[in-house]
Amino acid sequence: MATLCRPAIAVPEHVLTQERTLELARTLHADHPQLALALRLIENTGVRTRHIVQPVEETLRHPGFEQRNQVYEAEAKRRVPQVVFKALDHAGLGPRDIDLIVYVSCTGFMMPSLTAWLINTLGFDDDTRQLPIAQLGCAAGGAAINRAHDFCLAYPEANVLIVACEFCSLCYQPTDLGVGSLLSNGLFGDAVAAAVVRGRGGSGVRLERNGSHLVPDTEDWISYAVKGTGFHFQLDKRVPTTMELLAPALRTLATAHQWDVSGLDFHIVHAGGPRILDDLSRYLGVAPEMYRYSRATLAERGNIASCVVFDALERLFADGGAGDSARGLIAGFGPGITAEISLGRWSSGESVPRPGRSRAEAEPRAAVG
Amino acid sequence: MATLCRPAIAVPEHVLTQERTLELARTLHADHPQLALALRLIENTGVRTRHIVQPVEETLRHPGFEQRNQVYEAEAKRRVPQVVFKALDHAGLGPRDIDLIVYVSCTGFMMPSLTAWLINTLGFDDDTRQLPIAQLGCAAGGAAINRAHDFCLAYPEANVLIVACEFCSLCYQPTDLGVGSLLSNGLFGDAVAAAVVRGRGGSGVRLERNGSHLVPDTEDWISYAVKGTGFHFQLDKRVPTTMELLAPALRTLATAHQWDVSGLDFHIVHAGGPRILDDLSRYLGVAPEMYRYSRATLAERGNIASCVVFDALERLFADGGAGDSARGLIAGFGPGITAEISLGRWSSGESVPRPGRSRAEAEPRAAVG
Repeated sequence: MATLCRPAIAVPEHVLTQERTLELARTLHADHPQLALALRLIENTGVRTRHIVQPVEETLRHPGFEQRNQVYEAEAKRRVPQVVFKALDHAGLGPRDIDLIVYVSCTGFMMPSLTAWLINTLGFDDDTRQLPIAQLGCAAGGAAINRAHDFCLAYPEANVLIVACEFCSLCYQPTDLGVGSLLSNGLFGDAVAAAVVRGRGGSGVRLERNGSHLVPDTEDWISYAVKGTGFHFQLDKRVPTTMELLAPALRTLATAHQWDVSGLDFHIVHAGGPRILDDLSRYLGVAPEMYRYSRATLAERGNIASCVVFDALERLFADGGAGDSARGLIAGFGPGITAEISLGRWSSGESVPRPGRSRAEAEPRAAVG
Repeated sequence: MATLCRPAIAVPEHVLTQERTLELARTLHADHPQLALALRLIENTGVRTRHIVQPVEETLRHPGFEQRNQVYEAEAKRRVPQVVFKALDHAGLGPRDIDLIVYVSCTGFMMPSLTAWLINTLGFDDDTRQLPIAQLGCAAGGAAINRAHDFCLAYPEANVLIVACEFCSLCYQPTDLGVGSLLSNGLFGDAVAAAVVRGRGGSGVRLERNGSHLVPDTEDWISYAVKGTGFHFQLDKRVPTTMELLAPALRTLATAHQWDVSGLDFHIVHAGGPRILDDLSRYLGVAPEMYRYSRATLAERGNIASCVVFDALERLFADGGAGDSARGLIAGFGPGITAEISLGRWSSGESVPRPGRSRAEAEPRAAVG
């Protein structure tokens, strides 16, 4: 059974505090008619610090989409390898044990995707499958876990490496002056994350079931406007009410698995903002402290998009994990509006021997020939 | 066992002949030092006609990345539904029988991806999984088939809808004047395609094995430069030699399946250009006429990126298909440089009854709980 092993996370060295964010907003938007509202919204995010790939002075300049994307590529190549190796190490595997790399990122665009560079540079096999996903936004962390789970259901001996790379600061758009944009400028942070889903063995979350849900007719609630200046993040003011619409999907999936969603032992969810967590507590009947890992991610790193679920999960590991067979839920939320939901049980696993198999043994489960 | 059913293809109404393409090249690049070479390369593509979403006069203008992308979205919404319904019809299924939509496209960018709009608009279930892939270029058609195959291995009762949407003409960059760009301007065409992979039942190609291969250190042979003006397609002059490097991967996968690649009954491959097909014949010991479907796609529609494999496969269906249990290979090639390869047998199937199952029956194969 597929096991989501301990993730690895890294955040950049440039720290942006909420005080500095508020000060910048006051300076840059002194004449903004809704400045007071924007400042209050930023304060209410609960984001105390964020980490960004460039000094803030540079982040505030917009040198053009081309240069921004070049920074994205250079920073990804500089920062991703360390989390890849650490995640492999957590899983007790080496690059040649990996059958599929799922790479999720919505804050830069490359073709070929970084998967090709990773394979060429970090010692993965030339036959490693590549699955780059750029269009699921903050839900992509959950989607990556779910597609990795599916792949291990198809090929029970396979191992999947997930990489999430989000440099939200490279999507800062100085000319976007709506309140939603000002709020976003105080909310998002940068991070890279990696985690391995092992088909056999390993310790972490044994994945049992996954599902996806799209809230009807909410395509324009969270979206990118694609322009010559790059990706412009657009946040509708109805977004904070999203959990009322998505919480039932979480409950429904748990119920289909004969689990009571309000009685689970751990919840690892996307922390898009503080209200998401408060509302989930309310609509699912889950104690607020169950979201402490997601809340800590939000407070210390901001909304780091598809990296959030890995950061929050890492905090659960760092906290000693859950009891053996403890039941939990992982969920990413993002544009669509889409939820990617996963159910699994904690497993402290056995010792993690390196598998002796050759890659050719990763045969499909179905009979062939 | 997963079956790739008959695809549906549509091409736009605006036709661009090779004569007109050559005439345009002569007019627009009268002073180009390598014009003669560019004209010869375009003639050698064997592309007689292409279909594009706008009249050629409009295509030659560049109104900016933002407007281009708006045209992409509008044209996708206008043209995709018809191929989706036709592909569903070919598979004997309705929208609510679909568990996953794989959407591949490298010629426009939307977040949320078109999958959200398709689900909202065409009657798919809200719980349909979404897998948008933007970064595998021309290989994405093969990748979509392979990920759909994997999904049906994981969930044997599931059905997957694949949609490929490529408006290459919207990536025309008038300021790119290298010979590779001039050649590309005479090579690529627009199309939309859809196909269903049925977990049970259906007729078409029963998928038995898939694999991927990356040619080491060729990341910059086919790539996008991402600029304020959009995606700039960059074609290295070494690309025509690619098949020497990829043909062994096709042979290796067939051999692992105990099949002799030179003795297969059908070959459906990406027709990036004429030399790909000639070289594959040579390196795999396959008769040139085995590539007649791919060659017809190239001649009549140009290189339609991820749609090529579906267009070529449709031609095999239109030609009466192959004999029952005939063995064949499907392969997409694209940036990386990556090949996405699939092996399967022709199956004329039984009659195609609509499955009576409810979606909830699409359980993972693995025991849960």
